[in-house]
Amino acid sequence: MSELRLNLITGEWVIIATERAKRPEEFRQAAAKRVLPPFSESCPFCPGHEDRTPAETLRIPDDGSWLVRAVPNKFSALSPEGDPTRHDAGLKTRLGGIGYHEVIIESPAHDASTALLPVAQVERVMAACRDRLRAFYREAAVEHVIIFKNHGEAAGTSLEHPHCQIVGTPVLPGQLRRRIEEAMRFWGDYASCLYCRTLADELAEGVRVVTENASFVAFVPYAALSPFHLWITPRRHAAHFGAVADSELADLAAILRDVLRRLHFGLGDPDFNWVIRSLSPEEGAVKYFHWYLSLVPRVSRAAGFELGTGMFINTALPEASAAFLRAVDTADDRSGRG
Amino acid sequence: MSELRLNLITGEWVIIATERAKRPEEFRQAAAKRVLPPFSESCPFCPGHEDRTPAETLRIPDDGSWLVRAVPNKFSALSPEGDPTRHDAGLKTRLGGIGYHEVIIESPAHDASTALLPVAQVERVMAACRDRLRAFYREAAVEHVIIFKNHGEAAGTSLEHPHCQIVGTPVLPGQLRRRIEEAMRFWGDYASCLYCRTLADELAEGVRVVTENASFVAFVPYAALSPFHLWITPRRHAAHFGAVADSELADLAAILRDVLRRLHFGLGDPDFNWVIRSLSPEEGAVKYFHWYLSLVPRVSRAAGFELGTGMFINTALPEASAAFLRAVDTADDRSGRG
Repeated sequence: MSELRLNLITGEWVIIATERAKRPEEFRQAAAKRVLPPFSESCPFCPGHEDRTPAETLRIPDDGSWLVRAVPNKFSALSPEGDPTRHDAGLKTRLGGIGYHEVIIESPAHDASTALLPVAQVERVMAACRDRLRAFYREAAVEHVIIFKNHGEAAGTSLEHPHCQIVGTPVLPGQLRRRIEEAMRFWGDYASCLYCRTLADELAEGVRVVTENASFVAFVPYAALSPFHLWITPRRHAAHFGAVADSELADLAAILRDVLRRLHFGLGDPDFNWVIRSLSPEEGAVKYFHWYLSLVPRVSRAAGFELGTGMFINTALPEASAAFLRAVDTADDRSGRG
Repeated sequence: MSELRLNLITGEWVIIATERAKRPEEFRQAAAKRVLPPFSESCPFCPGHEDRTPAETLRIPDDGSWLVRAVPNKFSALSPEGDPTRHDAGLKTRLGGIGYHEVIIESPAHDASTALLPVAQVERVMAACRDRLRAFYREAAVEHVIIFKNHGEAAGTSLEHPHCQIVGTPVLPGQLRRRIEEAMRFWGDYASCLYCRTLADELAEGVRVVTENASFVAFVPYAALSPFHLWITPRRHAAHFGAVADSELADLAAILRDVLRRLHFGLGDPDFNWVIRSLSPEEGAVKYFHWYLSLVPRVSRAAGFELGTGMFINTALPEASAAFLRAVDTADDRSGRG
């Protein structure tokens, strides 16, 4: 019998359709679908093509070359030259498309994959994400910053060279405002952070935890919206991702890479998105919100039901997804080039 | 320069990326991609295969055969046998997967398409949707009913034979609760229905209206979330779709078919979803909510940015989408078989 579970953090119900659930192995993708060359003459992110991107905003150098670069997105929907004035005419509120959009190139190697990079390189990428987020929040027009990665065609990638993206928007997304409202209500009711409580609960129960280290825990949420959906949550309470300490970056890199290796080896390198949800530095000390990374493998598709309700139908039991990912052997010696 | 527009009904901002906007014609699909036989031996919805579906719950008869049927979904995620008891254990709230899920078969013809059906047949389909919605709301366990259609693979269809779906859930979706909250706030501020006001505003301005008749108006929302996204809104204020009168069904069928013909002939039969958003009959008389049909052609893909913010990037100017759809010749004589 299927069941409905309530996600307290989003305020949304999820249908866990265990009756038509697939076994975790059934989500495995056909192997070897992504075979890329180590260098591509047409790729603007490959070394030697630095003049094909706008001027870089961050470089982690490496003996004349680089290990990580951040560059403005050439096809950004937002631009620093936009007009931040809000116009209200009756029901119509608008402002110019002011904002910042950069790409963080994760490795010089065209065929690199975060899962296969050395952990030190993933740490450099996370440091770049944090530093660009801090810089974006120093811009007066920026109300909110989101960091995300699209891996694979089903996840919306248009360029194969491994990269993540960071966008500074001149508005607070309504979705985030509603999560803040849910979190504030929980604080009002229980005087504790909903995220800290969830983390403690998951650690106590254990069945949905995938992996953990000194600073972070990765678990499949109780009301996961899709198979293998998972969260990486810092143990230390902080609402702002920019507050992550240098000493925590290695742990963040290690757990993200660990989780991505479990997907890579366990499920055959599925397409996925990850996003980091965070408040601004001014809100960094609030007690009710807690930054986290949400990872959604693109192994199922949203249709009219999801569009019309905001509810998802998850065809895998979250506890089964977690058990499967826990059991994946990540000691595979196919190391990355980056 | 791109701009951001606020959708007051969802509370969400949309980025209208006019700089990288495509011209409407560029969204046109490759022609003739859906070529189906008029009858399929393997299709459970084709005439003569009535024993391959669960027992029908509605039939509009036709001289020994039928014109429209409603049948329970054989692979439903919800079942009338579920346990409606809510269980709260700390942070974990759940209930059994109780609910109702039916398929409304729109025509005996396997290769029919709503756009090409006679308007009288679309009226029968809308009548069936309304009548099953009313019936679902009579079930004690049902808190909310959603009607939707998935057309094409990108929209999540698994069966080609034309059909729409209706689901009765034992919970109110959080997404709908938040829309109710936005609408109540607008009522509180202005003592008028946000939807009635929006409709009056769109009619006065005219630039986003696609087509209208005595009972309904179809327009591209000011903050449309994607190219050709549109709403069909009843002129008569009512919060509950079940309140649609017999005398209004022909107009609803006519405007839905009209809009679908504009997509079919203008854009080459794109994949799409439509959903009907409605409150329950008990809430039918509330002044702040207004049922409507939302139609989203699947011509773009959501990725990490949309997942992480709930904001969409629309690569078409809503006014240009509306002008394009207004100009489509729907008098094409390729009539349907149904």
